[in-house]
Amino acid sequence: MNNLHDDIPAELPQEVFSDLLSAGSVRIERILSRGQTSPESGWYDQDEHEWVLILQGGGELTFDNGDCIRLGPGDYLNIPAHRRHRVSWTDPDQTTIWLAVFYR
Amino acid sequence: MNNLHDDIPAELPQEVFSDLLSAGSVRIERILSRGQTSPESGWYDQDEHEWVLILQGGGELTFDNGDCIRLGPGDYLNIPAHRRHRVSWTDPDQTTIWLAVFYR
Repeated sequence: MNNLHDDIPAELPQEVFSDLLSAGSVRIERILSRGQTSPESGWYDQDEHEWVLILQGGGELTFDNGDCIRLGPGDYLNIPAHRRHRVSWTDPDQTTIWLAVFYR
Repeated sequence: MNNLHDDIPAELPQEVFSDLLSAGSVRIERILSRGQTSPESGWYDQDEHEWVLILQGGGELTFDNGDCIRLGPGDYLNIPAHRRHRVSWTDPDQTTIWLAVFYR
């Protein structure tokens, strides 16, 4: 057993990505953010689908059609493969914990 | 966008299972419990692997080798397919929110 709050660094100069599970067609990842965003030109264009949940903190996703969605604790969203998106905001005042399930 | 705290009934005479995502080899389910347990003889013996996380509340899993693991908020665990287990306790005083990712 492990906990999503384990090993959270006091300082987060960069986002931290940790695989919690990797098994064939599924990967579960914890992402820690504190104010980081994707670079302006940094669209994610992924081969895998991604189901994403925020456990703590807040983040905002912007899609290349202009949609902009702000997520808080408990909010979840499915991002189909190749739906281009970027992280346009994360809470600068606390550590945001994302849970992402990547699947094919 | 949806939230894991949406549609939580005030009363929970039975556990409530809701599919949040179902796609090929992956299924993500929310489970709500309030004091329910598996029947004494009610072992889960699943064809799928299950990665389980508690978001709120508490629950306890007992395995057929005698292992007994109590989970609280943020705790997660991977249960391989056919590892026989039952839910031996859930918090009677609050609604427990489980997130389960079933995969093959």
